Amino acid sequence: MVKYGGWSISASGYRAHAPQHLESLFCQSNGYIGSRAAFLQDGAPPYERCTFMAGGFDYISPGITDIVNLPDPFHLTLTVAGSMPGRSGGSYTRFDQRLDLKNGLYTRDAVWTDERGCETAIKISRFISMANKHLAALRVELTALNHDGEAALLMGLDAGVLNLPVHDDQTLVNDQTVKMLNYAGGTSERGSCGLTVRSRTGRVKIDMRCRITHSDGEQEDGSGADCPARRLTVKLKRNQTVYAEKIISVNLPGGPPPGGFAPLLEESGSAWALRWKNADIEVESDDPGLQTALRYNLFQLMQSRPFGDPDVSIGARGLTHARYKGCYFWDTDIFLQPFFAYTDPAAARDLVRFRLSTLPDARENAKALNLDGARYAWMCAAGGREQCHTWDIGRSEVHITADVAYAADEYARVTGDESLRGEMSRLFVETARYWASRFSYDKSKDVYNLLFVKGPDEYCGVSSNNAYTVMLARHNLKLALGAAEGGVSPDEAAKWREIIEKSHVGYDAERELYIQDDDFPRLEPFDFMSKDGDAPIYRKMDYDRLQRYRVLKQADLVLLILLLPDTFTESQKHAIWDYYEPITLHDSSLSHGIHAWAAAVLGKRDKAYYYFKKSLLLDLENIMGNTGTEGINMAALGASWQTAVFGFAGLSAGSGGEPSLSPRLPDGWRSMRFAFYANGKRYRAEITPEGCSVKENREEKS
Amino acid sequence: MVKYGGWSISASGYRAHAPQHLESLFCQSNGYIGSRAAFLQDGAPPYERCTFMAGGFDYISPGITDIVNLPDPFHLTLTVAGSMPGRSGGSYTRFDQRLDLKNGLYTRDAVWTDERGCETAIKISRFISMANKHLAALRVELTALNHDGEAALLMGLDAGVLNLPVHDDQTLVNDQTVKMLNYAGGTSERGSCGLTVRSRTGRVKIDMRCRITHSDGEQEDGSGADCPARRLTVKLKRNQTVYAEKIISVNLPGGPPPGGFAPLLEESGSAWALRWKNADIEVESDDPGLQTALRYNLFQLMQSRPFGDPDVSIGARGLTHARYKGCYFWDTDIFLQPFFAYTDPAAARDLVRFRLSTLPDARENAKALNLDGARYAWMCAAGGREQCHTWDIGRSEVHITADVAYAADEYARVTGDESLRGEMSRLFVETARYWASRFSYDKSKDVYNLLFVKGPDEYCGVSSNNAYTVMLARHNLKLALGAAEGGVSPDEAAKWREIIEKSHVGYDAERELYIQDDDFPRLEPFDFMSKDGDAPIYRKMDYDRLQRYRVLKQADLVLLILLLPDTFTESQKHAIWDYYEPITLHDSSLSHGIHAWAAAVLGKRDKAYYYFKKSLLLDLENIMGNTGTEGINMAALGASWQTAVFGFAGLSAGSGGEPSLSPRLPDGWRSMRFAFYANGKRYRAEITPEGCSVKENREEKS
Repeated sequence: MVKYGGWSISASGYRAHAPQHLESLFCQSNGYIGSRAAFLQDGAPPYERCTFMAGGFDYISPGITDIVNLPDPFHLTLTVAGSMPGRSGGSYTRFDQRLDLKNGLYTRDAVWTDERGCETAIKISRFISMANKHLAALRVELTALNHDGEAALLMGLDAGVLNLPVHDDQTLVNDQTVKMLNYAGGTSERGSCGLTVRSRTGRVKIDMRCRITHSDGEQEDGSGADCPARRLTVKLKRNQTVYAEKIISVNLPGGPPPGGFAPLLEESGSAWALRWKNADIEVESDDPGLQTALRYNLFQLMQSRPFGDPDVSIGARGLTHARYKGCYFWDTDIFLQPFFAYTDPAAARDLVRFRLSTLPDARENAKALNLDGARYAWMCAAGGREQCHTWDIGRSEVHITADVAYAADEYARVTGDESLRGEMSRLFVETARYWASRFSYDKSKDVYNLLFVKGPDEYCGVSSNNAYTVMLARHNLKLALGAAEGGVSPDEAAKWREIIEKSHVGYDAERELYIQDDDFPRLEPFDFMSKDGDAPIYRKMDYDRLQRYRVLKQADLVLLILLLPDTFTESQKHAIWDYYEPITLHDSSLSHGIHAWAAAVLGKRDKAYYYFKKSLLLDLENIMGNTGTEGINMAALGASWQTAVFGFAGLSAGSGGEPSLSPRLPDGWRSMRFAFYANGKRYRAEITPEGCSVKENREEKS
Repeated sequence: MVKYGGWSISASGYRAHAPQHLESLFCQSNGYIGSRAAFLQDGAPPYERCTFMAGGFDYISPGITDIVNLPDPFHLTLTVAGSMPGRSGGSYTRFDQRLDLKNGLYTRDAVWTDERGCETAIKISRFISMANKHLAALRVELTALNHDGEAALLMGLDAGVLNLPVHDDQTLVNDQTVKMLNYAGGTSERGSCGLTVRSRTGRVKIDMRCRITHSDGEQEDGSGADCPARRLTVKLKRNQTVYAEKIISVNLPGGPPPGGFAPLLEESGSAWALRWKNADIEVESDDPGLQTALRYNLFQLMQSRPFGDPDVSIGARGLTHARYKGCYFWDTDIFLQPFFAYTDPAAARDLVRFRLSTLPDARENAKALNLDGARYAWMCAAGGREQCHTWDIGRSEVHITADVAYAADEYARVTGDESLRGEMSRLFVETARYWASRFSYDKSKDVYNLLFVKGPDEYCGVSSNNAYTVMLARHNLKLALGAAEGGVSPDEAAKWREIIEKSHVGYDAERELYIQDDDFPRLEPFDFMSKDGDAPIYRKMDYDRLQRYRVLKQADLVLLILLLPDTFTESQKHAIWDYYEPITLHDSSLSHGIHAWAAAVLGKRDKAYYYFKKSLLLDLENIMGNTGTEGINMAALGASWQTAVFGFAGLSAGSGGEPSLSPRLPDGWRSMRFAFYANGKRYRAEITPEGCSVKENREEKS
C-alpha cells in the first residue's frame, strides 16, 4: 500500500482516521516540533492528533513525566457544498498522500464526491519549517469540479487535545487519557488566531499563533472551547481553485513573520538541501526502491535532530509518538549518535552535552540506589532522573551507564573534538565510581561479580555477569583510568584495575564462545517453530516464560563485537555469531540492523543484506506491526545507517588517522557515494566498480 | 500512650484526626464489615474514614481491583452550645478511648470545654454486631456539666468517601484519590435514613439504612450531597444526660430490626463470648499486660474471620486497611489458617474452600504465564486472578502455590475433615502440573532448576533454586502423587518423581547448612550497624541495593524447618538458625513470630520470648511504625498464636492421633490454659507448675 520511489513516499486510498501506520510514516518534524499525520478532518480523536516539542515534558505522577501533547496547529475542518468530506455521506474518489523527502512537504490530493454527485478536488499541504524552528504552515486548495457550491473552512489552534500515557510495559494497554494542557487564553481576530496554554505544572508554556489568508470570501470568529478559530466562507466556481493558508508560529515573539506558504516552503527546502548535502547516501543498485528507502531512513534521522539545543536529546521514537513517554534511552548514544558524529558533528556534540549536563542527575540516580558515582537512567526526560520504575528493566538493565561513557568517548575519537574532554573525564570518573560500587566482591573466589543485571537481550531474566554489561563496564573503567588526573586516589585507581582484571565473563574455551550470562547454560531449549512471522513473540508469550528459554530478543554479544571489535579474535567473533544468531528472534527494532552490520563485517553477504532490508524497511513496511501504535523506530534508522557506512562501505575513521574504506557492497549494488566528517574534516567517499576512494573535500563548506 | 490491661485497650489524650495508629488499633469488624476508628468529628478526611466489606472489590484499572471504601455508617457531627468539639476554639479537657475485647465495644469518654468555659461530657460508643453480620450501632450521650446550652447532632450515612489506592510497592506513596461509589438514591425521613450506592462497575452494591432515636428534641432533614442525614436539636440541662442512637443495617432487607443499642450490644456480646470460649488462651505470668496483649491478638484474629462465607478470604490487613488493595496473600494459608483450624474449624474450612473454588482462576494464571496446571496468585481479590504485576514479587515469589497446597493438606490433617479430599486432590494435581512446567531441566547436568524465583525473604534478588520454594514444591508434588488416582498418567507421575529427586537445593555438607539460593554465597557482607531501631531498612535503602547484601528481610529457611520439620535433622535445624538468624532484620511483620516459634522449638528460651513479644506487640506498640498507615498486621497475629500454642505449649495434634503437649513455657509464665479442636474433637489443654494435661471436653458444645 505504501509506495516509495524517487524522493517520495506515497499511499493511495482513504480510511477514516487514516491507518496509524501512515500517521507515523508521514510524521513531520524539525527536531523542535514534531506532528503526526493524524487529522481532525479524518476523525482522529484528541489523543491521536499529536504534536510534540523537544523537551516538552511535564509530570503525570510523582517524579514521572509524559511528553505533553501540544495544541493541534494543523486544526482544520472542511465543508463543501454542505457536505463534510470523509464525514458526511459520499466518498473520496481519489485520495493520494505523499511525503516529499527532499523538502519535508506532506501533500494529500483528494477528490470528494458527495451523495448528490458534487465533486470537489481537495489539496492539503503542510510542512514544519527546517529554516525557522518556530514555524509551520498549512495550505488548502479547493476546486469544484462539477458544481458551484460554497465551502466553509474552520481553521484554528486546538488546545482540546489529550495525552494517552503509554505503559512502559509493552504488554499493557492504557485507555485512560489525561488532560495535560490548561487553556490560558486565546484570541480570534480578522486574519489571525492566538492561543496560550500551560501544561499541568507549568513546565511547558506554549504561545501558538497563526495568520490565516485565503481567496475572496467571508471570515468570522469560529472559536470553540479551548480552540480559537476562524470560520471562512468561500464561494466555489466550477474549475476555479480557491485556497486558504495558515502560517503557524510556536513560541515566536511577534507571531508568524510575513510571507506565505510558498516562500516559507522554499526557505525550508533550502535548509533541507544543506542537510541532504551532508547526509545523503547515493546508491546505484538493482534493488527497486532501495535508494528511496535509504533516504527515508536518513530523512527521519535528520528530522529528529534537536534544533541546536543541548538540553534535549532524541527519544526512542523521536517526536513521532508518545511511546515510552517520549523518553531518551541508550538508543540515542549507541544507535543514533554515530550518524550525527559523521554527518552533523554539531548535533552529535549536543547529544554528548546532554549527557554531560545531566551528570548531576545521574549522581542522584546512583544515590537513590545507595550507590556511588553516577548512574545514567534507563529512561530519562527533562533532566536525567530515572523515569523507568520497572524492576526487570529499569533497575536491571544497567549497561546504559557504560553505553553513555562509550558513546561520549566515541564522539571525541571520531570528530577529534577535544573541547569536551574535561567534562567527559568527570563523566568517566563518576561512572567508574558507580561501577566500582555496583560490582560485588566474592572473597571466597576472589572475583568481582555483577549481580542481578540484564543486557540488551530482554528475553533473558535478571541474571549475573552479563557479558555485554561486564565488558562495557570494564571499558568504562579503562576510560576513567585514562582520564583520571586529579581527584582520583591511587587506591581508587587500583580498585578499578582490580575490577577490570577480576570481573567475570563466562567463556567456553573449547568452543571459543563467550557466554551471555551465568544462567544462560541452564536455560531450556526453545521451540523456534512457535514463532510465526515478524510479530514479536512477547505478544503471545509472557516475559516470565521467555526468560527460561535459550532464546534472544535482540543482539547482545553480537552487538558487543561491533562496539569493542579489538576485544575479540576473529574466531571468537564467528563463534558468537554462529551460536547466538540462530537463536535470536529480532523482536526488538534494534536487532536487525546490528545483525546486518555484524554479518557484513564477518563476510556473510546474504545474511547482511537480509537483515539490512529488515532494518531499512522496518517502518516503511511496518514489519514489526508497531509503527502505527508506537511511532518511528529511531534506533533502527541509526543501525541501518551504520550497516551501510561501516558494514557495506567499510568506513574506518577517527582517532586522528586518515579515513579508509574496505567495501563489502551487497550483490546488485553498483556504486555507493556519501559525504562524511571525521577529525574535523569533510570527506567524500565513492565506491564504484572501478574501485573506491576517500577524498577530503576542502572547497565545500557545510 | 496505649495502655492494655484486663480486657481493655485504652488511650488518653486528643489529637485532631486521631493518631492513625489508634485508628487501626480500635478498628472494629465482624468479618463481614470492618470499620477503622477514624471519625468525621475529629476531622478525618473522606479517604481515611474507611469501612470495608469482605469481598467488596471493584476495578480501578483493567484487571486490577481495589477494596471499595463503603459509605461511612458512623457519620456524626456535633455542635454543643454553638461550639463544635475538636473543631471550634476550646479543648478536650478529658479524652479517653477504650476498646473492650470481651464484646468489641469501642467507647470514647470526653469532656469538651469551649472558649467560654462551657463544659460538656461527650460519650460516644459504637460496635459492629458479632451476632448479626448486617448490623452496627452508634450511641452518643451528652451531659452539660456547667451550662444549659443546646446540642445539634447530624447523623446520617455518608457516601462522600473516597478510595486512596495504595501502591503494591511499599516504597511508593500515592496521593491520588479515586471515587469508587456512585450514589444511587437516598431517603431521609423522621427517625431514619437510607442510602443506595453502587461501586464503579456495579460489582459492589450497598443498601445501607439506619434508625435514629434520641432524647426529646427536634428532628429535621439534614441531608447533604451523597449523604442522607437527620439533624437533631436537643436542649441540654445542667447535669442531665441526653442521648442519640443510630442502629445501622448493611444489605439487610427491611433495614435494622427493632431494638436499641443496649440489647443489640448484649446479643453481640453473647456471640463474642462463644468465640472467646473456643479461642481464649489464659496465661498467668509475671509479665504485666501480657494476658491483654495476647487477647488483643486473638480478638483481631476473631474479628477478621469471614462471616461463614467461603467466597472470600482474609486480606493481609483483614478489614482494617486498604493496604495491598485488600488482597489475599500466602499470609492466610500459612499464618492464619492454623489458628482457625484449631479454634474454629468451620472458618478454616471456608478458607480452604476459597482456594478450592478459585482453582479455575489459578489455571488461568498459569495459562497467562504459558505454564501448565494451576498457579495461585501472589495477590488475589474477588476470584483468584493475579492482582500483583510487579516483576520482582508478583512474577517471582512463586512459593504461594506450594503454600496453598501445603495448607490445604494441613487443614485435613489437623481437623480430620476428609470431605474436601476430592477437590483437594484436584488442587494437588493441578498445582503439581504447574511445578512440572515451572522447573527447567538442564540436560548437561541432569538437574531440574527452579530459575528466577524468590522465597519469603524479599531482600534477596530474583535468584534460582530458592530452598524454601524448591522444598515446598517437592512437598506439593508428593501430595499430588499421594492424591493421584484417575487422570494422572504413569509418565506424568514419573516426571513428578524425577523432579522431586533431581531438583536442586544448595547444601554445605561440612557446615550441615542449607543455602538459601544459588546467588546467596556470592552476596556482599552487610553492615548491620547501618540499621537503627525497628524501622525497616527499605525505608532508607533501595531493594536494588539490598539484594546484593547477605541480609534477610524475614525468615526463609527458618520458616521451612517449622513447616517441614521431618525434612531436617536437629543439627541441620540448628545450623540454619545459627547462620540465618543473626543476618535477619525482621523487616516483615511475618518474621518475629516465626523466629519466636523456631527459637522455642530449638530450646532457645530467651530468643523465643524476645521475638514473641516483638510479634505480640507489633501493632499495639506500633513497633514497625506501619500500624497506622497500613492497618493491623494479620500474619503477625497468627504467628504469635502459633508460637504460644506450638512453640510454648508444644501442642502436637492431628493425623488422627491423640494430641500431646511438650511445654516450653517462658520464664515467668506460671500457667497456660486453652481449648482447641483436633480430629473433630474438642480438647482443653492445661499447663501448670504441677504438670500438663490435654483432655477431651465432651460436655461443652461450641
